[in-house]
Amino acid sequence: MRNIGTAQPDAGRPAAAEPLSGVDEALDWLAERRKAIRCECGILPLEELDQWRTAPGTGDLEHDSGRFFRIEGLQVSTNQGPVGEWRQPIINQPEVGVLGLLVRRVAGDCYGLVQAKMEPGNIDTVQFAPTVQATRSNYTRAHRGAATRYLEQFEGAEPGRVRVDVLQSEQGARFRGKRNRNMVVEVFEDVPVSDGYRWIRLDILRQLHLQDNVVNMCLRSVLSCLAPADSPSERYLHTDAEVLSWIVRAKIRHELSTRGVPLAETTGWHRARGAIAHESGKYFSVIGISATAAEREVHQWSQPMIAPRHEGIAALLTKRVAGVDHVLIQAKTEAGYRDNAELAPTVQCITENYRSLPAEQQPKYLAQATDIGPGRCRYRGYQSEEGGRFYRQQNRYFITEVEPDFPDEPDGDHLWVSLPQLQHLVLHSNYLNIEARSLLSCLYAVPESTW
Amino acid sequence: MRNIGTAQPDAGRPAAAEPLSGVDEALDWLAERRKAIRCECGILPLEELDQWRTAPGTGDLEHDSGRFFRIEGLQVSTNQGPVGEWRQPIINQPEVGVLGLLVRRVAGDCYGLVQAKMEPGNIDTVQFAPTVQATRSNYTRAHRGAATRYLEQFEGAEPGRVRVDVLQSEQGARFRGKRNRNMVVEVFEDVPVSDGYRWIRLDILRQLHLQDNVVNMCLRSVLSCLAPADSPSERYLHTDAEVLSWIVRAKIRHELSTRGVPLAETTGWHRARGAIAHESGKYFSVIGISATAAEREVHQWSQPMIAPRHEGIAALLTKRVAGVDHVLIQAKTEAGYRDNAELAPTVQCITENYRSLPAEQQPKYLAQATDIGPGRCRYRGYQSEEGGRFYRQQNRYFITEVEPDFPDEPDGDHLWVSLPQLQHLVLHSNYLNIEARSLLSCLYAVPESTW
Repeated sequence: MRNIGTAQPDAGRPAAAEPLSGVDEALDWLAERRKAIRCECGILPLEELDQWRTAPGTGDLEHDSGRFFRIEGLQVSTNQGPVGEWRQPIINQPEVGVLGLLVRRVAGDCYGLVQAKMEPGNIDTVQFAPTVQATRSNYTRAHRGAATRYLEQFEGAEPGRVRVDVLQSEQGARFRGKRNRNMVVEVFEDVPVSDGYRWIRLDILRQLHLQDNVVNMCLRSVLSCLAPADSPSERYLHTDAEVLSWIVRAKIRHELSTRGVPLAETTGWHRARGAIAHESGKYFSVIGISATAAEREVHQWSQPMIAPRHEGIAALLTKRVAGVDHVLIQAKTEAGYRDNAELAPTVQCITENYRSLPAEQQPKYLAQATDIGPGRCRYRGYQSEEGGRFYRQQNRYFITEVEPDFPDEPDGDHLWVSLPQLQHLVLHSNYLNIEARSLLSCLYAVPESTW
Repeated sequence: MRNIGTAQPDAGRPAAAEPLSGVDEALDWLAERRKAIRCECGILPLEELDQWRTAPGTGDLEHDSGRFFRIEGLQVSTNQGPVGEWRQPIINQPEVGVLGLLVRRVAGDCYGLVQAKMEPGNIDTVQFAPTVQATRSNYTRAHRGAATRYLEQFEGAEPGRVRVDVLQSEQGARFRGKRNRNMVVEVFEDVPVSDGYRWIRLDILRQLHLQDNVVNMCLRSVLSCLAPADSPSERYLHTDAEVLSWIVRAKIRHELSTRGVPLAETTGWHRARGAIAHESGKYFSVIGISATAAEREVHQWSQPMIAPRHEGIAALLTKRVAGVDHVLIQAKTEAGYRDNAELAPTVQCITENYRSLPAEQQPKYLAQATDIGPGRCRYRGYQSEEGGRFYRQQNRYFITEVEPDFPDEPDGDHLWVSLPQLQHLVLHSNYLNIEARSLLSCLYAVPESTW
């Protein structure tokens, strides 16, 4: 689970000296950390997880302490998508975690304090993560591991130093009402840099998104809330009032009703051979994993995780209007959202689930958004999702410029929103979903963008 | 219930001619309507309500159609306030209703289309209401009454004409997760004015707040979202980032956990003599009422209502900082909120509940906020709450300027927020609670305010 046993260096050791100021240098340091943190992950039957039990009666998976998270069942009804009603396993993690990035300005440049963090589910296991990435169970030390480094910088931040502070959702198809506190706090004084942490110039950090599976999901989420610069223009396709009204209309049009059910009663899902899977072979399965990390204080643990069946796609169409970047957002309903809809990328789907469907039932704009022809592709890459809960899940991300004749007023659940409008909405809770925030963070890596 | 059988005039009758352009004229018209709509309300035992039943097993009160609303039980745990855990009856009304005001600009003046609306719980029964005030059960005609007048102007509004569109909460101590769609739509063409409706100049409508029990709660809620003018200044006591961060901290500090329970199992509450009341005699009771209105199409109906035991107080402290009005808001938790906290007035309480407590346990700032000495009182008056659900509930509202030596940084759950910041937040869902929105609407009636 997140942050269990983060490496806590001896306070007496010398801090890493210079900030990372180049992409190659940053990647070299990450490679070094990947070698140093010798970690191994393996799949384990759910019955063999240490300190995790199957609750009698419900079949829910829960930690002996009652903390961290539990996997339970959810009954879902919605008028969105091809299936109107279903049951599924879902992660219930009611605690609000902290995803916090310390930033500092030196001689006109802005730097962020990142860590090379091991998460068992991540591709290549160790990726760049925010300064603090911890659930409440972690930082209140339910695992009896070490204290969370730098936490006091966020929990006790002077109000005038807080640049971003917003509660954001995560994958609504996997988490029930989960949200984390995304924070950016500016420091003016020297902060001791622990082993495994480095200052990095923010433009270099943004460029690292151009590499596959290097910037972890939590860091992308925090960076999406920190616009690189104010946008100069206000000539947008829609007024702010129009955008807000479109969102309200979507929330009313999209119906969503859910209620918790015992995991043992999730129709269509079966526990066999140490895992829980859907009888169709689709969606995901719930598996057990064991992890060891040589450099960590808590050297070994095991936990349940969600293993995806297929790769997902998240794609954003963009268009320049009167010199201002606009992105085509989609109002989307996911079972675990706290409201009926959030703003998702233009396309967000698991391609495999649609392979058998005829062309007219394919996700809208899928072909256009994944067109990687010259001049139209602005970004493409693989990024890992929540490596503390999802096992080796990487999704394919695209940002694609539309042809000039693409309509200004597409039908239904899509709307062109200017980049400055999006930068404003992301400062409030539960507008942009995690996939849209990931893509916003990737967009900041694209040099020709205007902001 | 709301809007059941709103009077639908014969389309052939001549429309009310001139807009209301003076306070006396507006009050005269209201007095006339109060006479024309001959209505009578009486208390009825819950057992004698027509088309309402007590659900077997749970004891919940529900309509035979399953629509409108139901009264059920709620189990509440919170770390806020003197009591940590309790059960109570609560209104579950999952449908999103429309509270919509049509506005029109003529020769530099702005007008709103209001109705004189009868609601059984309102003081004096008939008050000024928005153009449309209807639950979904009403406007989909679950009561088999007339269609909701002007609804198409809101449901089918061209995006460019929508000035305000936001989902807002209502009393969290009484409603579970209820929210209504607050809308302001501008029209440019002539709209036929039905009997019982009038155009009124918005500054006159705002001045009507200075009268007790004349502007109903739904209209105050809509008007709170429509700032009279942009504020020129940006010299605020706190930055926007500081305000947003303060709200997030409050949401994390305030814990709230609720779950539905059968109404029959709300410990401490007893059904006897045709009503449900708390054994302490405090809080509120659930009663039945019957209503008749001579001018309405559905002439007679009955329904459950909440009858308060005591009057409430909602008070806002204000302070001018660098020429800009600031108001002292409070982060407050109520059982039915969709999130752990919303922004409430400086003081919001039922005084009677605190009478027996020693001075140090009295609500903070109560004495200062209700000080009506010369020069400090900016507003005071009685306003009715939700007349479709609450029986004769009027609360006392105050807006009071603080002494110059009042601290800029009060402790705990209070923060100075500039009026322009508040005007921005109210455009997003679930920031300002209904009492704060009522007071914002009243503040716009105070001539010496700056906005």
